[in-house]
Amino acid sequence: MASSSSYNPPCAACKFLRRKCIAGCIFSAYFPAEEPQKFANVHKIFGASNVGKLLKELLPHQREDAVNSLAYEAEARVRDPVYGCIGAISFLQSQADRLQKELDDANADLFRFNDIYTSN
Amino acid sequence: MASSSSYNPPCAACKFLRRKCIAGCIFSAYFPAEEPQKFANVHKIFGASNVGKLLKELLPHQREDAVNSLAYEAEARVRDPVYGCIGAISFLQSQADRLQKELDDANADLFRFNDIYTSN
Repeated sequence: MASSSSYNPPCAACKFLRRKCIAGCIFSAYFPAEEPQKFANVHKIFGASNVGKLLKELLPHQREDAVNSLAYEAEARVRDPVYGCIGAISFLQSQADRLQKELDDANADLFRFNDIYTSN
Repeated sequence: MASSSSYNPPCAACKFLRRKCIAGCIFSAYFPAEEPQKFANVHKIFGASNVGKLLKELLPHQREDAVNSLAYEAEARVRDPVYGCIGAISFLQSQADRLQKELDDANADLFRFNDIYTSN
């Protein structure tokens, strides 16, 4: 017969840190047990203590976005230890510069076409 | 009379961590004493130990780029604790999407102009 006491499985953070996942654990809502790599990355790059401190300094409704952005940064840094997510910023900046130049050229062509069209 | 022994002022990291800056200090080449905020930010967000570990795992010629990208990420996270540099990624992604749409529209207009021009 199953025990009537409820069992709370530890969140990914507490499992990783081999500690009891107590009620009110700052990590449990954002690091579910099914996503162990998310916490492992964040722990490796930022450190559990820094992440916990940062979360405690935020308002509760800001914490999910903060964890997701930290997880994105941590994953990027694990994949590319030299540039991390700055690689994505450089890529997007180059892409935006190239598109702006192509748009300027296209607008200049349109301006010329418009001149020819209206002068005929 | 000045002493003949040379005095090496500690790098920003060793000064911050209140320790002697020994020859071969992993931080000294990348965290000069004149830029204390650069190390303070990196320490606050990533932790000195994580940064030292990451630098030691890289080849010497990769370390400057790594420190600069870490410093950029750390400064962004200090300024915006919720989104950090992911805010810049979202902004650039929206900008690239908007430019791509404007370019597609301009190219469609050019195509129409070209059709009219060549059919006359």
